[in-house]
Amino acid sequence: MVTDNNSYCVIMGGGIGSRFWPFSRKSLPKQFLDFFGTGRSLLQQTYDRFSKVIPKENILIVTNDIYADLVREQLPDLADSQILLEPTRRNTAPCMAWASYHIQALNPQANIVVAPSDHLILKEEEFLEVISRGLEFVKDSGKLLTLGITPNRPETGYGYIQIDGEEEENFYKVKTFTEKPELELARVFLESGEFYWNSGLFLWNVNTILNAVETLLPEVADKLAPGRDVYGTPEEKTFIDIHFPTCPNVSIDIGIMEKADNVYVTLGDFGWSDLGTWGSLYDLSDPDEKGNVTLQCQSLMYDTKDNMVVLPSGKLAVIDGLEGYLVAESNNVLLICKKDKEHAIRKYVNDAQIKMGEEYI
Amino acid sequence: MVTDNNSYCVIMGGGIGSRFWPFSRKSLPKQFLDFFGTGRSLLQQTYDRFSKVIPKENILIVTNDIYADLVREQLPDLADSQILLEPTRRNTAPCMAWASYHIQALNPQANIVVAPSDHLILKEEEFLEVISRGLEFVKDSGKLLTLGITPNRPETGYGYIQIDGEEEENFYKVKTFTEKPELELARVFLESGEFYWNSGLFLWNVNTILNAVETLLPEVADKLAPGRDVYGTPEEKTFIDIHFPTCPNVSIDIGIMEKADNVYVTLGDFGWSDLGTWGSLYDLSDPDEKGNVTLQCQSLMYDTKDNMVVLPSGKLAVIDGLEGYLVAESNNVLLICKKDKEHAIRKYVNDAQIKMGEEYI
Repeated sequence: MVTDNNSYCVIMGGGIGSRFWPFSRKSLPKQFLDFFGTGRSLLQQTYDRFSKVIPKENILIVTNDIYADLVREQLPDLADSQILLEPTRRNTAPCMAWASYHIQALNPQANIVVAPSDHLILKEEEFLEVISRGLEFVKDSGKLLTLGITPNRPETGYGYIQIDGEEEENFYKVKTFTEKPELELARVFLESGEFYWNSGLFLWNVNTILNAVETLLPEVADKLAPGRDVYGTPEEKTFIDIHFPTCPNVSIDIGIMEKADNVYVTLGDFGWSDLGTWGSLYDLSDPDEKGNVTLQCQSLMYDTKDNMVVLPSGKLAVIDGLEGYLVAESNNVLLICKKDKEHAIRKYVNDAQIKMGEEYI
Repeated sequence: MVTDNNSYCVIMGGGIGSRFWPFSRKSLPKQFLDFFGTGRSLLQQTYDRFSKVIPKENILIVTNDIYADLVREQLPDLADSQILLEPTRRNTAPCMAWASYHIQALNPQANIVVAPSDHLILKEEEFLEVISRGLEFVKDSGKLLTLGITPNRPETGYGYIQIDGEEEENFYKVKTFTEKPELELARVFLESGEFYWNSGLFLWNVNTILNAVETLLPEVADKLAPGRDVYGTPEEKTFIDIHFPTCPNVSIDIGIMEKADNVYVTLGDFGWSDLGTWGSLYDLSDPDEKGNVTLQCQSLMYDTKDNMVVLPSGKLAVIDGLEGYLVAESNNVLLICKKDKEHAIRKYVNDAQIKMGEEYI
């Protein structure tokens, strides 16, 4: 299934992931954690997965300066030249644009898959099959391709992609991108059969995406295109440290995908989750007969229902008379809140920083 | 206020205190803990308190073999001869009988105050005044004296003492000892003005208590009296290791106090608590305006009421939407239960031992 030497993979690993606080910390965000105790972090799992179809030397990680050591530690096979370090966070569009300019300098025929570093994929073979076919699809077509996931529930936490006609087998023209819907609308989406979850995975030829950036996001291209002479050289990092922070903060979805007219989607069902929230982690886990999920630690439960308990391994949680709560402890923080209050975690993190300081977030 | 060289103090420090699990552990029970962060454990506070009225060399600690090192560490001023080590737990009557035989061998005129090691006393001066007067009272009277606490609420967690006529100022003949009452009865007790909390503190002359043991508890005296020749000598420990475990398991209240006809009580109000439960610790603490008590750690509370949170210092608890719970973490155990379910802690400890092993209890 290994593709050719023109295939590249860009893994985006710079996120902070505060929605999993206190488990995910600014100093050790979600992608670096081994949620399920498999022995490999989400980033490592992502790298392992893609290295089965992409030449290892063509896999790049884009992350933030502050995570450089963590990436090197977790992925010791990577050469330093395979780690692109953003001096500051500017959302996905500038990130992908830079990675594309960088790859174009190395190989102007490159076909690229761009993937988050912190998603879960359970059915690897099906996934890699879709990736291989997708790389083939974008090679000469001048089309941007996104990966749509067959929804299995009216999820309100994801964006949706509405498909139009099927162009060739399992490649559909995209009709619309839709932001996270309300529950009622999500139910309509699910029943319609026309809407698919937006996975945040993209495939394209390097020239196709850079044409799109230059046409649709000139405010990003204007900053990064002038670096063409230095990409892939020792001067690249200095150029980026100066010019990358001047890029606007804009996502690839809003900046490119929703505007472009050559966007396609290929569909799959491969046990995918963006692991975006404690709730999504709960849904992926295996509850006991009372609906309680215990991760990493041990637990004794009395008169409890539908809780999610995540303490460091070796710990015992004894819980009596609790229903529908998240109990998460990591390091110096214990969080107890209703599972459906997890949207408030950002507020907790903010308050914790004010009350206690940086080492608590 | 220092009394004479015939005054002795016996501090009982062998309890396991599982009611404060997971904070109190078999390897580090309640008396060795510094609950309020004062810098001194409850045992140390007890020693400090009595050393103001009792010659330091006359203060003895009775504890279990397994806590010998802890006692030596926390009370380095004690000579080894001041630490009596029980080879096994046999409740308070054999414990006090042995201590009395031991002291009689050292000083046949001794007047003794016996005290638990894990109680809290806030008004020290009033307390020591009562102790000094009590030691005077028991010196030549041939009477057993117990300390009654003026109740301030219809507490169902304590035993009560009913008083009869006042013999001399603040010394009353005891009418009855009563076990922990139901709430309705506790209310009647409180209103009557005749009932006082049984503090578990006793004062007596050494010959008075040994007469009582030999008359009322011959099954204990038969085992321990034959050691008279070795008490206070290097052979004492060997004798005790053989004979102490053959004593019946019986409390001083049931074995002596409820049967004897020479029992008196002196009353006081000195901010006393037996710290018997998390609930009693809550009552003694200073809740915030929502009724939440946070001990040792820091907390951020949202939409919470009447909780008690005790995590190790340096930790932050973030709690949203919880009412009336105990959240206690120590070492490798986190306990979350309703404050009024704390009677179930013994069951939790038992289950934790079965599931996880000795190092979790």
